[in-house]
Amino acid sequence: MFELLKTDPTSKARLGRLTTTHGIIETPVFMPVGTQGSVKALDPRELREMGTEILLGNTYHLSLRPGMDIIRAAGGLHQFINWPHPILTDSGGYQVFSLARIRKIKAHGVEFRSHLDGSLLFLGPREAMAIQRELRSDIAMVFDDCPPHTSAPREMRAAVERTKRWAEECLEQPRAPGQLVFGIAQGGADAALREDCAKALVALGFDGYAIGGVSVGEPEPEIFKAIDVAEPFLPAHLPRYAMGLGTPAQLVELVARGMDMFDCVLPTRVARNGTAFTRKGAISVKAGAFKADFRPIEGGCECYACRHFSRAYLRHLLNVNEILGLRMVSVHNSRMYLKLMADIRAHIAAGTFGEFRRDFIANYVPSRKVLLARANAER
Amino acid sequence: MFELLKTDPTSKARLGRLTTTHGIIETPVFMPVGTQGSVKALDPRELREMGTEILLGNTYHLSLRPGMDIIRAAGGLHQFINWPHPILTDSGGYQVFSLARIRKIKAHGVEFRSHLDGSLLFLGPREAMAIQRELRSDIAMVFDDCPPHTSAPREMRAAVERTKRWAEECLEQPRAPGQLVFGIAQGGADAALREDCAKALVALGFDGYAIGGVSVGEPEPEIFKAIDVAEPFLPAHLPRYAMGLGTPAQLVELVARGMDMFDCVLPTRVARNGTAFTRKGAISVKAGAFKADFRPIEGGCECYACRHFSRAYLRHLLNVNEILGLRMVSVHNSRMYLKLMADIRAHIAAGTFGEFRRDFIANYVPSRKVLLARANAER
Repeated sequence: MFELLKTDPTSKARLGRLTTTHGIIETPVFMPVGTQGSVKALDPRELREMGTEILLGNTYHLSLRPGMDIIRAAGGLHQFINWPHPILTDSGGYQVFSLARIRKIKAHGVEFRSHLDGSLLFLGPREAMAIQRELRSDIAMVFDDCPPHTSAPREMRAAVERTKRWAEECLEQPRAPGQLVFGIAQGGADAALREDCAKALVALGFDGYAIGGVSVGEPEPEIFKAIDVAEPFLPAHLPRYAMGLGTPAQLVELVARGMDMFDCVLPTRVARNGTAFTRKGAISVKAGAFKADFRPIEGGCECYACRHFSRAYLRHLLNVNEILGLRMVSVHNSRMYLKLMADIRAHIAAGTFGEFRRDFIANYVPSRKVLLARANAER
Repeated sequence: MFELLKTDPTSKARLGRLTTTHGIIETPVFMPVGTQGSVKALDPRELREMGTEILLGNTYHLSLRPGMDIIRAAGGLHQFINWPHPILTDSGGYQVFSLARIRKIKAHGVEFRSHLDGSLLFLGPREAMAIQRELRSDIAMVFDDCPPHTSAPREMRAAVERTKRWAEECLEQPRAPGQLVFGIAQGGADAALREDCAKALVALGFDGYAIGGVSVGEPEPEIFKAIDVAEPFLPAHLPRYAMGLGTPAQLVELVARGMDMFDCVLPTRVARNGTAFTRKGAISVKAGAFKADFRPIEGGCECYACRHFSRAYLRHLLNVNEILGLRMVSVHNSRMYLKLMADIRAHIAAGTFGEFRRDFIANYVPSRKVLLARANAER
């Protein structure tokens, strides 16, 4: 199912290949986020052209709208959204704990009110797995307890205990044919909790492991710490997924820390505000500096936007609220992320990831605005 | 420049070919509207795939934003928006009279305040032609006085006199290389005024003639009347353009009345509210009736949306405000208009336009909602 092809001599970076029902995924991989069954503003052709291998879908959002009766009738999520390639579905744990109004955390899940209409709902390991079975995703995630990063140690410990129990319950549920199930290690920035949670999940035996509860508003050093303390306890022969991350520079650093899979709403989210990612950092395409700049967003970029349009034109479109503007920045940013991962894979294969990492980080100027946007991003 | 290839024996429908600097256009033709330099939500590849031969741009909007200094620096509108095919530009007359706050109508144009920031501006024949020269459009329109359809006879007469004078002034202005200039006949629903205006413009000698001041909120019979009374005075060997029209059924009827060129914001405008055009009339894709309808918007349609997505999926996207939903309905509707014109051309060529017209009108159920949307449409 997962083949570890090569490891980097200068870091924990790994080159791998993950086989799923709907196709093979080369890792490290970035997974564009299609929360509600669509990567915001992009169509499947654009996604494939820019090199998308696997999409994310979401249990919580899709089960609310359109509802499982519709997706069941369509024959599953791949059919419904016309994406015949791999799909990973998040379990809804993160959304229940971040979006919904929780009424009560119970032994077998969470009673909560929908963020849409306030209706009373229940989601737990059993329900989340049943939904993902019907979505027929290639990779299902366990239903976890994802507490705020500011939680007290005692709450964090309780969340880890719940996450472990619920993970076990998820494993007992039936799956869609060929469906893989990944465990999610929680524990915040507490090294002992992360170790405990990771070990317990590994003992249960999942097809892959995610590190959750990162990118929930905490500062960057805490993100890396959470990864660093959990990673040593994850089996080398299985894929590791760092959930909800990150900026381009963070992705490079996370690969170097042994992570294989990533998802993040940043590329499309900031695009809708006119922010474009380049290898030197983020730029605001709306800026007056670009009003007569007839170069593409990023020289050498092969995305549709950079092959066809100038910064001046895209700036105009964004400033007059033409949808094509945010579409094209979404195309560029998503391609930028996917190409970055392709380059990372090529450098690991060639044994040059160390230099690539050093140069990339040296050239990339992090933007506070983007980091804030990530911290506040819905998923 | 214009070749009249065939006329229909049962109506005034004409098959033609219009040669412009950037390409040849088969008529009757529908021109998608790119008011601000983008057909709303669509990219040039999509436009070409659906059969777009010529786009519309707008003097008023483009001169305000991004401003002529930018478009001049880009080398013209084709370069700026990356559309190497024909472009027709409207003169801004309609927008000045419908969007701007007019301060004073003067001998050589209109003093008005920008609808964006209230700044005081002046647009007249000289200015409109200078802008269109810099836009380098293939077809420029004269700057006309476009009064409300409810205007008193005296005002309507004054508008026609101004339109005639300004048309003459437009003709005296320099043009971009190879640029064609079309006159615009005004006169409301007054047959004598329409005749007078049309004759005066024809005497001046333009490359083509438009009928303006239609589709400004008046009922459908008045639209057809305005066309019917002006058409006999337009030279048969030159193209005729019915401005700002209309629904699919209206286009069929306008072709039958001898019109060759059309533009309308309807296909993309109503798409953004989830309304799709079919050959049987408009449908609201958001409707509950489609929630588990896995057929395409329109069976047999070759657009990207109909080849890839179900009504159920598009309904879901529209209901959760995913941009892909309105994008795909915009794709379908624009393709529907362009394919309708392609079918009309094929039927005129085959001598079967009479039957086609009869069947189309018999099957097409007009929608009051759509007619209202057209009447209120910005251009």
